[in-house]
Amino acid sequence: MFNVKFDKIALIGIGLIGSSLARVIRKNNLAYHISIATHSLRTLNDARELNLGDTYTTINSEATEDADLVVISVPIGVSGAVARDIASHLKHGAIVTDVGSAKVSVISQMQSELPKSVHFIPGHPIAGTEHSGPRAGFSDLFFNRWCILTPLPNTDQTMLERLSAFWIACGAKIDCMDPEHHDLILAIVSHVPHMIAYNIIRTASDLEKVIHSDVMSYSASGFQDFTRLAASDPTIWRDIFLHNRDAILEMLGRFSEDLAVLQRAIRWRDEEMLFDFLTRTRTIRRNRFEAGNASVSVQDC
Amino acid sequence: MFNVKFDKIALIGIGLIGSSLARVIRKNNLAYHISIATHSLRTLNDARELNLGDTYTTINSEATEDADLVVISVPIGVSGAVARDIASHLKHGAIVTDVGSAKVSVISQMQSELPKSVHFIPGHPIAGTEHSGPRAGFSDLFFNRWCILTPLPNTDQTMLERLSAFWIACGAKIDCMDPEHHDLILAIVSHVPHMIAYNIIRTASDLEKVIHSDVMSYSASGFQDFTRLAASDPTIWRDIFLHNRDAILEMLGRFSEDLAVLQRAIRWRDEEMLFDFLTRTRTIRRNRFEAGNASVSVQDC
Repeated sequence: MFNVKFDKIALIGIGLIGSSLARVIRKNNLAYHISIATHSLRTLNDARELNLGDTYTTINSEATEDADLVVISVPIGVSGAVARDIASHLKHGAIVTDVGSAKVSVISQMQSELPKSVHFIPGHPIAGTEHSGPRAGFSDLFFNRWCILTPLPNTDQTMLERLSAFWIACGAKIDCMDPEHHDLILAIVSHVPHMIAYNIIRTASDLEKVIHSDVMSYSASGFQDFTRLAASDPTIWRDIFLHNRDAILEMLGRFSEDLAVLQRAIRWRDEEMLFDFLTRTRTIRRNRFEAGNASVSVQDC
Repeated sequence: MFNVKFDKIALIGIGLIGSSLARVIRKNNLAYHISIATHSLRTLNDARELNLGDTYTTINSEATEDADLVVISVPIGVSGAVARDIASHLKHGAIVTDVGSAKVSVISQMQSELPKSVHFIPGHPIAGTEHSGPRAGFSDLFFNRWCILTPLPNTDQTMLERLSAFWIACGAKIDCMDPEHHDLILAIVSHVPHMIAYNIIRTASDLEKVIHSDVMSYSASGFQDFTRLAASDPTIWRDIFLHNRDAILEMLGRFSEDLAVLQRAIRWRDEEMLFDFLTRTRTIRRNRFEAGNASVSVQDC
């Protein structure tokens, strides 16, 4: 087993994910020193007020000096810029990872910026809420959640195991896969649902104008659960939509085809097809989410 | 004020809605006698075991004899058949109502079957869960939920007020509107979201076959909330999809147009449009569901 305690962990970005990491690192004693960087002075002051770290700065490269582990938790559109900021201020042998929801883009933005002397291992803890900012974080956010690592072909196995041990110490379960594979999966279980949630709010809101009625006020709790994803942060989600573009367009195409088939069955009053479809999908959902989730076995990384 | 207590209430259908009604009627002492009918002997035995009523039968017309209020809570595809069953076994002056999620269809199925001597007032309590059957009901299901009544042009005002008082005594808030208006609203806040939830389970499940991965196991809790609607009863939802066909096709058309615009913005990397869109829809959702729901004022019926 590894000693998962790092001498210094630098957290670049201290929103929902970064601040949850700060809390669980502190709680589980995973670092002697936590340095926090964010470009927003207001966010930095919030982090300080919450006592999330040991040192605070608005300069990314200041936080990464001497850090053994650097975790970048920023909107993925600025991943490349952050990598450029810190590139010449990284400790030899440090692990640099991120938490972005689209791995192909993050890798293409960061890999060429970072020096060969550090171990860049992209990652993505699949955890979150619709809330954002350092006050929204909590130490249990990663508990029993998957953290997917998408190591590059030349990744040092020992460093990969060290990073895995860190996430496990944060409460997460680890899996490794290709970045392309990750991006397709996330497109359908997260990105397309977010698009739909934002989109249906628009459609419902437009109907309100057309029929002069507070349409959404008549919704039951199901609609609120269904649209909760639309309360998520616009900057983060704009970046995800743009940076996982190809996988999202692919999965959205499949989703729309399937929806068109269902729509056609309604138009043509195909009772049997509808009943079979609803029965089958209900069974799939029940098996997945009611008979105990997380049926994936942990794979070797 | 009315005495909202009825001598005899007949509940035709004793699933989630019917059994929740039975419970709240008993709890709030709204009837001297509750008669329960369902065509399924197994469901009837469950209802009896749960002590939901006073008399039990598998014959609809037996339950409605002498009843002052008849509430029909069945899959809407059989509304017409139930109306035919009970038509000649209704007390003169009784109120007959239903709880169906598509009013135009229910009215066209039932109105012509029922005798002129009863007061037919279609209704829809907007409340539910993804669970079904008499064991899934609970007395608080209607608490603080809208119950929409769609009275016909010749509806007796006193009877409308009596039915409203009944629903208010069950915990609900009352609103009245045209059946067409109701059906459009429900299509977007309930029916289309159900279609999407069922549909995305299919798309995700198909991806599992294509990439040989337990795709859905990597989903975060957001996906589970988003797809919870797909755990709903297939018979009830097949009927809703078929019987609110026109409104659903209309709203699905609007939804798909809006989604295409969003998809195009992603394809063309329109950062500004995406950011504005996400910000605007998030604000709408927050205003609706986070600053206190239920902003509709109670209208006179």
